[in-house]
Amino acid sequence: MAPAATSQNGHSGEQDLDLTSSAVGHRMVENDTSNSYGAASNGVSQPNINELDASKLTYTFTDSPREPPELGITEDNGNSICTDHMITAKWSAKTGWTAPELKPYGPLSLMPTASVLHYATECFEGLKVYRGYDGKLRLFRPDCNCERMLMSSVRISLPSFPPKELEKLILALMSVDGPKWLARERAGTFLYVRPTMIGTQSQLGVQAPSEALLYIIISYMPVMDSPAGGMKLHTSPDDMVRAWAGGFGYAKVGANYGPSLLATKEARARGFHQILWLYGKSGECTEAGASNFFVVWKTREGKTELVTAPLDDRVILAGVTRRSVLELAKERLADEVKVVERKYTIDEVIEASAEGRLVESFASGTAYFVCPVSVIHHRGRDIRIPAGKGGEGAPITLRLKNWLVDIKYGKEQHPWGVVVPEEH
Amino acid sequence: MAPAATSQNGHSGEQDLDLTSSAVGHRMVENDTSNSYGAASNGVSQPNINELDASKLTYTFTDSPREPPELGITEDNGNSICTDHMITAKWSAKTGWTAPELKPYGPLSLMPTASVLHYATECFEGLKVYRGYDGKLRLFRPDCNCERMLMSSVRISLPSFPPKELEKLILALMSVDGPKWLARERAGTFLYVRPTMIGTQSQLGVQAPSEALLYIIISYMPVMDSPAGGMKLHTSPDDMVRAWAGGFGYAKVGANYGPSLLATKEARARGFHQILWLYGKSGECTEAGASNFFVVWKTREGKTELVTAPLDDRVILAGVTRRSVLELAKERLADEVKVVERKYTIDEVIEASAEGRLVESFASGTAYFVCPVSVIHHRGRDIRIPAGKGGEGAPITLRLKNWLVDIKYGKEQHPWGVVVPEEH
Repeated sequence: MAPAATSQNGHSGEQDLDLTSSAVGHRMVENDTSNSYGAASNGVSQPNINELDASKLTYTFTDSPREPPELGITEDNGNSICTDHMITAKWSAKTGWTAPELKPYGPLSLMPTASVLHYATECFEGLKVYRGYDGKLRLFRPDCNCERMLMSSVRISLPSFPPKELEKLILALMSVDGPKWLARERAGTFLYVRPTMIGTQSQLGVQAPSEALLYIIISYMPVMDSPAGGMKLHTSPDDMVRAWAGGFGYAKVGANYGPSLLATKEARARGFHQILWLYGKSGECTEAGASNFFVVWKTREGKTELVTAPLDDRVILAGVTRRSVLELAKERLADEVKVVERKYTIDEVIEASAEGRLVESFASGTAYFVCPVSVIHHRGRDIRIPAGKGGEGAPITLRLKNWLVDIKYGKEQHPWGVVVPEEH
Repeated sequence: MAPAATSQNGHSGEQDLDLTSSAVGHRMVENDTSNSYGAASNGVSQPNINELDASKLTYTFTDSPREPPELGITEDNGNSICTDHMITAKWSAKTGWTAPELKPYGPLSLMPTASVLHYATECFEGLKVYRGYDGKLRLFRPDCNCERMLMSSVRISLPSFPPKELEKLILALMSVDGPKWLARERAGTFLYVRPTMIGTQSQLGVQAPSEALLYIIISYMPVMDSPAGGMKLHTSPDDMVRAWAGGFGYAKVGANYGPSLLATKEARARGFHQILWLYGKSGECTEAGASNFFVVWKTREGKTELVTAPLDDRVILAGVTRRSVLELAKERLADEVKVVERKYTIDEVIEASAEGRLVESFASGTAYFVCPVSVIHHRGRDIRIPAGKGGEGAPITLRLKNWLVDIKYGKEQHPWGVVVPEEH
């Protein structure tokens, strides 16, 4: 899909734009095939443009190492606590990627005109690293996160890169900071890895930035998957929508998060944990806060279904936990539960509840993992959902959650658990 | 609208969220009335929270002043050229606003976990400052920009502030940098003022930031209101939407810009200047790039109408230039032109064109000012629109534009032109 030649005072006029959100996926594949990333947009390899290359990683270790916090402490005066090091790599449209650097964690210097500060040219990923009961350090399906990061980056006009190289960099950083910051004594706990890309060009003109910075940081994060009494959701206000068909709800870009904070803050002030985002006039259930949302109900014929919103209109994020839950349910619960990805409305949930058919509900995501939902507040009334003793989860939720726990913490050897190499 | 009292394990459950996008306006008024800004969310004055106060401005002048660029040069190696100084003010939820500082222009230091870099907690304004033919320096309706900045800030969960104080700070910065960077010899030219607010809290948890930074910078910007042959627009791809009812299209937040860059870049590669963003199944015309969009057509009854999209569903930005054009047209063209704010579709534009009733079209905004549109490319065909000789503008467009030029550059003394005090 090479852009047509254009003259200064005219335009090709022959063919319409086909770089739509669905064409982005296509472009990524083109780039993959031609092995050409960075500024190349026509699928032709450009030898002067450097690719992101994890093998070029340089190491500069901190000379003022810090002590990890006590177990369970994740913040310092309201700020996230990060590990000793981070990895950065710069990109420019002219030269591509610099060699990535592992270096001491510290502030970034950005010009006040930097693209990211004005036009939200930013995207990120979130994945946890787990200290297993077998002593090993594991990432959970990091390939999924790295592929999604590429998709998000292209959607927000930031550079592309080989996802495998990002994965290697994440592993390299964990290899350095893992042994100290998630020590073997801390089996059953995790750190949070945040790859981030920002547009750094110092240019106020509204345009795709010609310079960017990729960085990877590691922080602590509180355990959020088991709020006392279960997660309480409040449906979104009538005149507020998180994402929409033709938008970018499927990409992990900053622009999906900032605008949602206002409603979330108010919901929290009223004792709820998150907003259940409804979509369209019929009130389709989409996401719970920044997590995917599931219900388990019985059909009127008495069959048990695990239901979640589909990905096809690209309104919701394709969560790695969502995908894993669906795959495990299909593989291990096939006899009991039918897995259904379809649009479903809040009225269907209310109806199932009224008829005693609403069996379970949970949110899924990296931050909230698999979190049982016990209440949905909608237009003045509460929908109450079985969530087990103290909200720890009803049976199907718990089984899915425990299978994932076992894979993450090495109780079950599984290809989704990718071991981080550590020196002994 | 005080938040109901909540218990740790429960929620009030009595009343639904009414902090919707329309309630935001109400809250701002509450804050105004109580004279309480910052962390206050219940309209009760909190004496320990400091307000933004321009009278506390401190001055630290640069000891390495730079030379302004040659007339017409606006960039340095692709980067915006800014003036010697900037103004910053920090905010925290606990203490409110620090005293604003005027200081040398230079990089910002942000932690890699800063809210703005992940969750697009950012908003901005754009206004120009004009060197008049009478030697005076003028801002154009800065009160409108400062009020909109407050609205944007609240919508994106950043702090509130008295808009008048922001206006005073803009004037203070221009008083210092104006005489040198927009010298009297440069009558008829302008600088671009960019007030910006970003969430700076170093916290990866998805929440409203408890720390923020307001800053004001001044840069050069190219003249964009008279592209040779007029502005050429390409309608948005079928599966890409800029903003939507219930979203935040009306606020000047970063989240409206980054996601639009992808389509814009492709349109530019094909020789177009901007995307004409259509909305909904019927293809309503909303914005042209990041500008408002107008058409002038004749009705079948032969009446001349100046038509633009309405603000009521909050999909489009309430542009200051848009508002000024509408006001001037009502005041000065009432005998000839009917001013109409209503939804109208691309099919209506095509129909008017086919029947010879499409008279003029222009985009309006701070960057593009009043920019004649000569072509709209839609689904494989061009709609051609009279745009005057060489695209300089058809008669109604030109009259509106020239009235505004006269006000901005002091040829007409008008309350919209706010003079910046300068030492003599």
